[in-house]
Amino acid sequence: MKERSHVCGKIQEELIGQTVTLQGWVKKRRDLGQVIFVDLRDRSGHVQVVFNGEENREAHQVAEKVRNEYVIEVTGSVVARDEENVNDKIATGKVEVMAEEIHILNAAKGLPFMIEDEEEISEDVRLKYRYLDLRRPKMHDTMYTRYRTTKLIRDILDEQNFMEVETPMLTKSTPEGARDYLVPSRVHHGEFYALPQSPQLFKQLLMVSGFERYYQIARCFRDEDLRADRQPEFTQVDIEASFMGKENLLSMMEDMMVRIVKELKGIDVPKPFPRLTYEEAMNRFGSDKPDTRYGMELKDVSEQVAESDFKVFANTVKNGGVVKGICVKGVSDQYSRKDLDSLGSFVEIYGAKGLAWLKVEENHTLKGPIAKFFDEDKASGLIDSFEAEAGDILFFVADKKQVAWDALGALRIKFAKELNLINYDEFNFLWVTEFPLLSYDEDAGRYVAEHHPFTRPLKEDQELLETSPEKVKADAYDLVLNGYELGGGSQRIFERELQEKMFSALGFSDEEAKSQFGFLLDAFEYGTPPHGGIALGLDRLVMILAGRTNLRETIAFPKTASASCLLTNAPSSVSDAQLDELNLSVIPKKQETGE
Amino acid sequence: MKERSHVCGKIQEELIGQTVTLQGWVKKRRDLGQVIFVDLRDRSGHVQVVFNGEENREAHQVAEKVRNEYVIEVTGSVVARDEENVNDKIATGKVEVMAEEIHILNAAKGLPFMIEDEEEISEDVRLKYRYLDLRRPKMHDTMYTRYRTTKLIRDILDEQNFMEVETPMLTKSTPEGARDYLVPSRVHHGEFYALPQSPQLFKQLLMVSGFERYYQIARCFRDEDLRADRQPEFTQVDIEASFMGKENLLSMMEDMMVRIVKELKGIDVPKPFPRLTYEEAMNRFGSDKPDTRYGMELKDVSEQVAESDFKVFANTVKNGGVVKGICVKGVSDQYSRKDLDSLGSFVEIYGAKGLAWLKVEENHTLKGPIAKFFDEDKASGLIDSFEAEAGDILFFVADKKQVAWDALGALRIKFAKELNLINYDEFNFLWVTEFPLLSYDEDAGRYVAEHHPFTRPLKEDQELLETSPEKVKADAYDLVLNGYELGGGSQRIFERELQEKMFSALGFSDEEAKSQFGFLLDAFEYGTPPHGGIALGLDRLVMILAGRTNLRETIAFPKTASASCLLTNAPSSVSDAQLDELNLSVIPKKQETGE
Repeated sequence: MKERSHVCGKIQEELIGQTVTLQGWVKKRRDLGQVIFVDLRDRSGHVQVVFNGEENREAHQVAEKVRNEYVIEVTGSVVARDEENVNDKIATGKVEVMAEEIHILNAAKGLPFMIEDEEEISEDVRLKYRYLDLRRPKMHDTMYTRYRTTKLIRDILDEQNFMEVETPMLTKSTPEGARDYLVPSRVHHGEFYALPQSPQLFKQLLMVSGFERYYQIARCFRDEDLRADRQPEFTQVDIEASFMGKENLLSMMEDMMVRIVKELKGIDVPKPFPRLTYEEAMNRFGSDKPDTRYGMELKDVSEQVAESDFKVFANTVKNGGVVKGICVKGVSDQYSRKDLDSLGSFVEIYGAKGLAWLKVEENHTLKGPIAKFFDEDKASGLIDSFEAEAGDILFFVADKKQVAWDALGALRIKFAKELNLINYDEFNFLWVTEFPLLSYDEDAGRYVAEHHPFTRPLKEDQELLETSPEKVKADAYDLVLNGYELGGGSQRIFERELQEKMFSALGFSDEEAKSQFGFLLDAFEYGTPPHGGIALGLDRLVMILAGRTNLRETIAFPKTASASCLLTNAPSSVSDAQLDELNLSVIPKKQETGE
Repeated sequence: MKERSHVCGKIQEELIGQTVTLQGWVKKRRDLGQVIFVDLRDRSGHVQVVFNGEENREAHQVAEKVRNEYVIEVTGSVVARDEENVNDKIATGKVEVMAEEIHILNAAKGLPFMIEDEEEISEDVRLKYRYLDLRRPKMHDTMYTRYRTTKLIRDILDEQNFMEVETPMLTKSTPEGARDYLVPSRVHHGEFYALPQSPQLFKQLLMVSGFERYYQIARCFRDEDLRADRQPEFTQVDIEASFMGKENLLSMMEDMMVRIVKELKGIDVPKPFPRLTYEEAMNRFGSDKPDTRYGMELKDVSEQVAESDFKVFANTVKNGGVVKGICVKGVSDQYSRKDLDSLGSFVEIYGAKGLAWLKVEENHTLKGPIAKFFDEDKASGLIDSFEAEAGDILFFVADKKQVAWDALGALRIKFAKELNLINYDEFNFLWVTEFPLLSYDEDAGRYVAEHHPFTRPLKEDQELLETSPEKVKADAYDLVLNGYELGGGSQRIFERELQEKMFSALGFSDEEAKSQFGFLLDAFEYGTPPHGGIALGLDRLVMILAGRTNLRETIAFPKTASASCLLTNAPSSVSDAQLDELNLSVIPKKQETGE
């Protein structure tokens, strides 16, 4: 084996006349008898190599044996292509390499699929042969986007005097949050480590240590039932700072996002990002992660319809509910009554009892089954509320506030996709703030933290923590991009007394709080600075930047929806000896125990 | 709370006359009645703040309440110190801040230890209060060294077109190597993931994928009984490249090390690094990770003593053993006969039956209990072999080669430390090459891989794999620094046939090889390029750079020798519900089951 002199993608006109040695994969081979053409590919691109049997018999004979995806080494001279053979679509299209020597470095048998982006392949096959799937240009590009994104984030945080610190993966199981992955200890009988759901506690302890500006691109784990956009292990850009204040932190994050989108997509994003309170986001978009690339905002018409003849609306308002709607522009002709009625089952998913609709006609009039309940004034008022025009359709949900938000929020997204209202070149960032600190969990019969138990209540609400916990708003912020929650953070509690009140609001006894989080409570008494932070989902950020719609596409070796790796067959059974050392036994499956 | 205008360490002469707002910790407080001095510390350093009760009564009153490690905010004007109070030892020693306003951001109770480097504290207490231990300047500096090292490694690899790819943490348990940490699967009854001992298989698969240049700063896990320099989780700089060849890879690694030592220590390390074969390293230094900061090399005197009257030497050589020795310069006077005899028990640790010694006297003569066995010629010959002079002592071990290597190698290190022969400003890198590929494991009754089963045999030895596996040398290389193995790597097997032969030499049946590593064997058939790589132990590299002697000092939140975290109390027991979900039960301790 020689040394490579060049990479394939850089064989261009300025090398004409030179002898080069290339190493790579056979992307395509065309055998025209006396002449064989091979497109030779490496990471940088590909170049055409010509084997001419008349000029170099030996090399031609070897070239007859090679097949797609063989790994070969070629030495030859760079020549200009004939005018008529120039290919302007590729960087190396003006030249070709006249092979003088070829060595087969490794053979390849027939592949389960072609190494082409266009190929449609079932995901199971792709995951089983992930090492071939990753050879496809689109997958390679996505991994490169992921790499450039993380490198850029590190460089930016370094400039800002943030310091990466590695925190443990073998840590302690805590009751709050999602389900932990456990790791049995061999040394400590019957005890377990937990894999971290996030480095939250450790990053706060680093603030107690005076690190002031910490970050980590950290692997995190959650043993949850997986949806399309979840993975058992995921990567988080984890940031925490002392003495920085919320405004400086958010501004730095905005700068970071602007630079990432500029460098990776060439798109300028304006600053500062809009901010919506949770209440406003829900009221206007029916979502706490609104996609603002299109309009169709929710309007509240409760007052207008409270006195209407349509009893469903009037009674809802009377009983403390709301009537909200959206206006879908210019689609009257596209949706038949049947189409519209069938949307009722869509909103049912979100708990709505029904979906009312009204088509807007010429002269400020309404049409549809419930149009008769609205007189000329009321009709006109509704139309004005939505700034609607003839050809638009109005949709209404009358229900509890949360149901109306959820149903119309989802309907809004559904229409935006169906009607192609989304501009995929837009990167619409925004902040959502003032989330509720706690929510009541009916199953658990207690309040649970909306973010996590270390989130700081807004100063003006702190007194409500003991009296009306549900009214307390958090000093928290979510970063939203194009309808996805990229991440979130908060200013943290840094006083023992307030943290104890928070645990108490969550229904922890003093003893529980101490046994689980005693070290943090203790730490707070040794001079803990005011601090706050944020965590971003790297997989999701990369997914959006790479224009993909599935997190698995952004991860080199992902798991399936049942948390399996189809490539290595993990998880798998292990030897009895391994279990014995851990003092564990597997409880047989129910049906196997027999009865 | 205001915004910080400056950091403490930057309050210097050019700010005289300006008003600054600082936030940080009270490092020290001296109360002189009407005047209180506070050394205020943040990450950047510290500065003296003056509270004068006559000038500002209110601030002085608050300052009376603060104690060490309180977190405070101070606003005041920067003034020059009087000539006699200037402190040249600190960056801020020419100025002080006359406080106008002070706010206590958080109080601190009495600390379990002082935040000073000099303080001697038991390690258990340090680990329990790690968040305070990390406040100490030396710990903070070590973490900063760790950060700068990783950042620099990433920058260097980025320049070389390497791309970081994250590989899974939840992966498959394999029988080779150390003991795996297991993670029970909730979804797959009775099955387990394993935490990776290294990303070895995945990085090789990425080479199959055509990534060509991969790296990752990766967390790795080994469930081994811990020694002082082992941790259950550790961090590895993991590198793999295709089409690069060994020479280019080693040269790049040398460049990387030179730059790291230059940037972090300001020391110039010459290139290229020396290379020793395994055989030479053992013969000269009795170690495969020799410390070359001092001499005392091993000499083989087997031939010279084969015919001597000292039967122990003569018989050893006759029976196929060796007689090797080291010369310790100018210490005759320091070691009594009793001292020297007691060294016998030291070499016994390494399996040696005894340690012979000879003091070198004036006029090329020897003294000591066995001196009588060597006539004038033999004595002179021995002295010449070691280039010894009067005042030196020669030590000999007569035994099997491996025992002589190990015992004298250890003795050499012991003397170097005792006699202060080590220059701690030297950074002596070297490569050790041509390791044995396999060694016979008496317990397992089979050959085991010295590095791992994917290491390529040297080309010239490949034929021996089936006939004399123990003679096969590996195309492997270890990077050694000052007597520590920083890491190692190899060129890899990339052909299915050779990999199968390797598995067969390791005693795997075809079926075992397929069930454990079938996906890799398959991958090798789809066009796998020649590739190789290296992995460095980041913790150890940082330990040496930071001048520490214990890996725990380089890790923010390390585990103890029993793999516990004294801060969080991990591992810990978990709820029955958690175990039920995993279909696991803990086997009670033997003594608890009763009989």
